[in-house]
Amino acid sequence: MERIEPQNVKGFRDLLPRYAYKKNEIISVIRRVYESYGFLPVETPGLEYLEILLGEYGEENTKQIFKFKSPEEQDVALRFDLTVPLARIVAQYNDLPKPFKRYQVGSVWRADKPDPGRFREFTQFDIDVVGTSSQLAETEVISAVVKALQEIGVGEFVVNVNSRRVLNAVVAYSGIPADRAKDVFRVLDKLNKIGIQNIELELTKGRFDSSGDFIPGLGLTGSSVKKIRDYLALPKGERKKVLAEITALLGEESCSDLKSLDNFLDVLGLGNGVVSFDPTIARGLDYYTGPVFEVNLKNKLQFGSVAGGGRYDNLVKRFTNADLPAVGFSIGVDRLLAAIGDEAENVNFTDVVVTIMERNKLDEYLKIANELRTAGVRTDLYLGEEKGLRKQLQYADKVNARFAVIVGSNEFEKGVITVKDLKVGECAGKDASEHEEWLKKSREIQKELPRKDFVKEIKKLLELK
Amino acid sequence: MERIEPQNVKGFRDLLPRYAYKKNEIISVIRRVYESYGFLPVETPGLEYLEILLGEYGEENTKQIFKFKSPEEQDVALRFDLTVPLARIVAQYNDLPKPFKRYQVGSVWRADKPDPGRFREFTQFDIDVVGTSSQLAETEVISAVVKALQEIGVGEFVVNVNSRRVLNAVVAYSGIPADRAKDVFRVLDKLNKIGIQNIELELTKGRFDSSGDFIPGLGLTGSSVKKIRDYLALPKGERKKVLAEITALLGEESCSDLKSLDNFLDVLGLGNGVVSFDPTIARGLDYYTGPVFEVNLKNKLQFGSVAGGGRYDNLVKRFTNADLPAVGFSIGVDRLLAAIGDEAENVNFTDVVVTIMERNKLDEYLKIANELRTAGVRTDLYLGEEKGLRKQLQYADKVNARFAVIVGSNEFEKGVITVKDLKVGECAGKDASEHEEWLKKSREIQKELPRKDFVKEIKKLLELK
Repeated sequence: MERIEPQNVKGFRDLLPRYAYKKNEIISVIRRVYESYGFLPVETPGLEYLEILLGEYGEENTKQIFKFKSPEEQDVALRFDLTVPLARIVAQYNDLPKPFKRYQVGSVWRADKPDPGRFREFTQFDIDVVGTSSQLAETEVISAVVKALQEIGVGEFVVNVNSRRVLNAVVAYSGIPADRAKDVFRVLDKLNKIGIQNIELELTKGRFDSSGDFIPGLGLTGSSVKKIRDYLALPKGERKKVLAEITALLGEESCSDLKSLDNFLDVLGLGNGVVSFDPTIARGLDYYTGPVFEVNLKNKLQFGSVAGGGRYDNLVKRFTNADLPAVGFSIGVDRLLAAIGDEAENVNFTDVVVTIMERNKLDEYLKIANELRTAGVRTDLYLGEEKGLRKQLQYADKVNARFAVIVGSNEFEKGVITVKDLKVGECAGKDASEHEEWLKKSREIQKELPRKDFVKEIKKLLELK
Repeated sequence: MERIEPQNVKGFRDLLPRYAYKKNEIISVIRRVYESYGFLPVETPGLEYLEILLGEYGEENTKQIFKFKSPEEQDVALRFDLTVPLARIVAQYNDLPKPFKRYQVGSVWRADKPDPGRFREFTQFDIDVVGTSSQLAETEVISAVVKALQEIGVGEFVVNVNSRRVLNAVVAYSGIPADRAKDVFRVLDKLNKIGIQNIELELTKGRFDSSGDFIPGLGLTGSSVKKIRDYLALPKGERKKVLAEITALLGEESCSDLKSLDNFLDVLGLGNGVVSFDPTIARGLDYYTGPVFEVNLKNKLQFGSVAGGGRYDNLVKRFTNADLPAVGFSIGVDRLLAAIGDEAENVNFTDVVVTIMERNKLDEYLKIANELRTAGVRTDLYLGEEKGLRKQLQYADKVNARFAVIVGSNEFEKGVITVKDLKVGECAGKDASEHEEWLKKSREIQKELPRKDFVKEIKKLLELK
């Protein structure tokens, strides 16, 4: 038989157990929080008709779609976000609740140039509210995302908020025609990545990027760029202060939506430390029409924003005459996983590995494993062909088990079960009492339990109820 | 703007909230059970290189793959099961535990002819053990699937088991060359769908199927077919009886693996009612080499098998020299969902909808919703623009909420909150005491709670701790 090289398609990757487990945990927490806010789940297919996905998106994005033919020779493509499928759904089904608060988690695919840490398939976890203009909706999605990130335990983070209304006012104030606005926003969105100097080059004559490609400039005048620069230099952070500055520069009308949002955030006790206003936030997608948000982890800025969203009042109009203003927030689950990935090293997916010492007593080991499982202990029965204990304990270590159960001829005779603690390790504590505690534990590293009571004892050791 | 028709690609579908919610529940239960057995999660991409997916599969299956080009112009395809990606993984990564017990849940895609109830994207939930020949592995996957289906509550079901070793012995016994065996198994796999007459036609001269297509026959002789027919007529069900009959017809060697499996199933107390031996089970996939299994729901046979699997000792050899015998079991989550779908009608995803009676007091409603959520009550705040109560209660009904919270000017004045029970409905009971109970409930359909204690009271009504 010809051997085939086992490898991933360029730009794709696998998640092995520790990371896959941690990712499941993250997704479960987000799901629970979003359900507690009354968001309802939907699922849509990975494939959509190409014409569904094209349209409002910028030219750059349409190039990033994986396109192919259906068996009926129609143009289809892999979805590249969960927002367009949602817009399709609310137009397609008449009997959805209105407003429709939905959550969806799933893979999206982009035929990007792959970079280290940037993959062509990744998981988004989205919430959206479709069918209301009220800034209560922005408040709901922001508050739900804040709660989810807190419950996951991502460390310190901040939701940075701005509004396309403000940005449109800046474009007008800078003497730039309204039909160039989206081009300007796409450039501004790169501010954190490329810095103000490069932004100014992209707004004017263009520049060469790090891989030597020429990025053509927008050809704006110096006086326009100066006004944009003044705007970008506004203070950020404290919401009421930012509102005052924007009002002073661009007039009250430009931040009416942010003002309403600020009030609701106050009601919920969400302070400036958690939700800030930041005039430099633009977001790259063309379809935003109102407030835009992104989340950064304060101590892990290098991972970029781990969540983003905003109001998009016109997207659904592509599919229906109904007026369905909408707002959404998307968590980049894989980016979040990468940012808090160290924790994956410590995930504990198995409580006990039952080793096999006497191959002619397999029935007994099966019973032992079964009793543990019935009692709610996550139990792995060693299924391999290694006969020695050392190799089997290496296996237990690989699956990150807390305890090994060992029953040899000696134990069978005495009617006992030996339990070995696989996680005592080094003494982590610094003072004498901690050392004493550790010594006590390490003496208990291996203990004999009576066969008939061992399940109860192991549950005690695991601190299970 | 040109309107685009909102529709799914032919053969694809959406899951709206009730079904998506129920599906999540099913997946959570399976995940918990599989983790309790020590299976570890992995995730693999939707796309694989085409050459990874081709090979061992039958000709029919290769036609069912969604194929296209990567941005690098390489041949890629959407995975059409989770088993081949697993075979790739165990060959690709050296430091996995061995044996490797993994679970994976995800979409697979097949470019089949779509039928009612048969879709081109569906979710599989797989467990596999790679790296052992021991029938303990079969026992583990069968026992885990049984536990998962019991915990989901699918009603009565049976795992039907046979072995490719038995089927190979039948092929030899019937005087059919070994290299035709896989063709024979693919025909036998259709027995439940098309019946013995059509099976015999497909084994001999061929037949026209219901859509008028000619299915060429295998051209077997009458005496071969007679022997197969005799075999298929063996009793099924009681394991020890089936073993005796097979042994009598085909010799002891043919069912050595089933014998060992039967013993382990006895140890776990899994009786004939839950795991039966059935000589007619063949499974369609070419790669099976030992025991094969499928699960049928006793009262819902029309949904076909909701899970299937078996031993495949040679699949990994396509990718590595290492000898990695394997066994797996796959649950068809969507088929299971369809079979128990009526239950989705009753899923209760939201506890309380907070209606909005006074638009100038939005802050108050936001506070009310926030207090409920903080206390763990799944709370939806009405975000729409309808001012009337009736429309808002219709919304609450759409999201299947248990209670509506109503606070109008009257309630604000009195410092109370009105809670309306949305689920009392008709009297379901038949006798007088049940009717009395219902009358009592329906009197309580709407009650006033003091503003400051309302959260505690609502939790009591919901029977939350």
